[in-house]
Amino acid sequence: MMAIRYEHVHTCKQSGARAGRLHTPHGIIETPIFMPVGTLATVKGMSPEELLEMGSQIILSNTYHLWLRPGSDLVREAGGLHNFMNWQKPILTDSGGFQVFSLSNIRTIEEEGVHFRSHLDGSKLFLTPEKAMDIQHDLGADIIMSFDECAPIPATREYVKDSLERTTRWAERGLNYHVKSGNDKKQALFGIVQGGEYSDLRKQSAREITSLDFPGYSIGGLSVGEPKPLMYEMLEETVPLLPFDKPRYLMGVGSPDALIEGVIRGIDMFDCVLPTRIARNGTTMTSQGRLVVKNQKYSRDFSPLDPNCDCYTCRNYTRAYIRHLFKANEMFGARLTTYHNLHFLLNLMSDVRQAILNDSLLDFKEYFFETYGLNKENAKNF
Amino acid sequence: MMAIRYEHVHTCKQSGARAGRLHTPHGIIETPIFMPVGTLATVKGMSPEELLEMGSQIILSNTYHLWLRPGSDLVREAGGLHNFMNWQKPILTDSGGFQVFSLSNIRTIEEEGVHFRSHLDGSKLFLTPEKAMDIQHDLGADIIMSFDECAPIPATREYVKDSLERTTRWAERGLNYHVKSGNDKKQALFGIVQGGEYSDLRKQSAREITSLDFPGYSIGGLSVGEPKPLMYEMLEETVPLLPFDKPRYLMGVGSPDALIEGVIRGIDMFDCVLPTRIARNGTTMTSQGRLVVKNQKYSRDFSPLDPNCDCYTCRNYTRAYIRHLFKANEMFGARLTTYHNLHFLLNLMSDVRQAILNDSLLDFKEYFFETYGLNKENAKNF
Repeated sequence: MMAIRYEHVHTCKQSGARAGRLHTPHGIIETPIFMPVGTLATVKGMSPEELLEMGSQIILSNTYHLWLRPGSDLVREAGGLHNFMNWQKPILTDSGGFQVFSLSNIRTIEEEGVHFRSHLDGSKLFLTPEKAMDIQHDLGADIIMSFDECAPIPATREYVKDSLERTTRWAERGLNYHVKSGNDKKQALFGIVQGGEYSDLRKQSAREITSLDFPGYSIGGLSVGEPKPLMYEMLEETVPLLPFDKPRYLMGVGSPDALIEGVIRGIDMFDCVLPTRIARNGTTMTSQGRLVVKNQKYSRDFSPLDPNCDCYTCRNYTRAYIRHLFKANEMFGARLTTYHNLHFLLNLMSDVRQAILNDSLLDFKEYFFETYGLNKENAKNF
Repeated sequence: MMAIRYEHVHTCKQSGARAGRLHTPHGIIETPIFMPVGTLATVKGMSPEELLEMGSQIILSNTYHLWLRPGSDLVREAGGLHNFMNWQKPILTDSGGFQVFSLSNIRTIEEEGVHFRSHLDGSKLFLTPEKAMDIQHDLGADIIMSFDECAPIPATREYVKDSLERTTRWAERGLNYHVKSGNDKKQALFGIVQGGEYSDLRKQSAREITSLDFPGYSIGGLSVGEPKPLMYEMLEETVPLLPFDKPRYLMGVGSPDALIEGVIRGIDMFDCVLPTRIARNGTTMTSQGRLVVKNQKYSRDFSPLDPNCDCYTCRNYTRAYIRHLFKANEMFGARLTTYHNLHFLLNLMSDVRQAILNDSLLDFKEYFFETYGLNKENAKNF
């Protein structure tokens, strides 16, 4: 009995994208889905009730950050992450691998694990596949990740090959440790496909990782600065090698175009800090494209951020008010834009799912890209 | 027909304190009441829905700050402060007088008004009794304030006497201007009693200001750093001179002990940034006294901030979680403590009102002071 089960619902006849349901210990998730990121056991500025109200079905939290603050033992004592942060719907935690490689400049990779220094106080840390399991067992998320190396793009072929093969060995060690602990009954461990920008290495990694019996598979090491066409190519090489009856998670992707393109290529789950990070800087996503509400031109604009949006922010507040809050450094400004941006992506994924059910995802994509301005020359990334 | 009406409900037989109802254009306020402060058209970190849920009946906003940002003309274009900030219950605005004297170091007082410099960019500004009316007409609050000089304590008797007499002349000018504009039908202008630390000057000011027909009276220039017994003495000299059938507002007071002592001396309305300001610094008010949730000793304390509190924060979150949010600089921490502190003072005032209705406010005071720790030697101010 595995902790989660993927139920296939429909394959879009127009695009080949799929809609499904993911059954987890904390409820059912309708896929494809975008997962808001709550790095430190809080989605910055949002309450759990707001996350529910806007339609969040699952949130993500970060193993590395919680390990350092407040400590995974403390979260365990609190009854796990769900109780600690007052969120009773599904949670996914990453493995810490990405942060070890993105936040720490000084690190030594060995077969056993990675020596590195805390980005907070420089203290020495050592993370291994087994330790990443221990921490994630303490946190108690419904879906957890194998410890992997997220190799940069570009990197030499030799480096990437060595790295992905080590990541496979780490995945197997983590899986064995996880199953032995008995936690696999309530926490679903995903394997992570790596392979950088090399098609054959992506395929090698996918074959190796799927030879291990994980209840779901992630694609890592993309959306790390490479051009989007390259990312899409890597997905096209990789996804067909993943088993149809298990969920597929593309890590770190949250721009509207990449979400749609990812779904078309067979992805079920996404996460990214993009919508919340740009929101705190006064940038919003609307049905007509990006809108930087801090701009002077909105100072006397008494219309909502997005006239086609029915979220809490757009029902109650004007661009002029939100701009004022940002200019005055008022916290409530970031609350309002964060709410809107998350609602926008959750709503987009809900529309995408409906388009799959209607066998019309390519039509939807064309319509969305056109209205969002993604077909324009020099269109912004999001 | 005045914009507001004070309805007396009960006088506490034990303390002489009064309970009433204040009828305003945006609804009825049950007095005595604490008013949360929303300086820049937002109570820092809170949504209007949260303010309602915790029991806020009226909020305060600051004329000076809104004049500078976003500008009172912009707020008028937005349909007034109620529409701009999405708050349809009563609002009170101050006159800007306090900020002119507390935020600006360079100022020149003339009979006509005050020349001073913006605390934001140093630009030259000139505020007069009439200008303070114009701005407050634009903002459109239910209750507005006369432009006054808030003299410091200590100050020489001569300075304070000159100052309060000018404040009386300014009050009359503002009132005439206000009545002539016709806005007195929908906005109630209060006169402000000054007089520093001098009993006879407080009395002189009270007599002068109440000789003008304002629909309510404020007591200003207290809670500016003087010892509390001096403030209570000034209240005892002043309040008996105020008409019984109109509301009385003590400006800038929000510590639990001073709220209770103020009510006992006949005050109906209070405001202060204290609960929200200390909340953002991780300090909370509980039924057992102050609790600095950032302290190390709460790192593994899985009980609520206040075991006797049923607010949103205390029903759902632990001290350990809130401490973690503060240590990690997460916005949601300040939201939770701000909610709790405001709820605490609103709930305190609701208890105080009930004690008045039960003729037992002195008993309540004794009980509250004892449990809050205010009877201890070297008790903290709040």
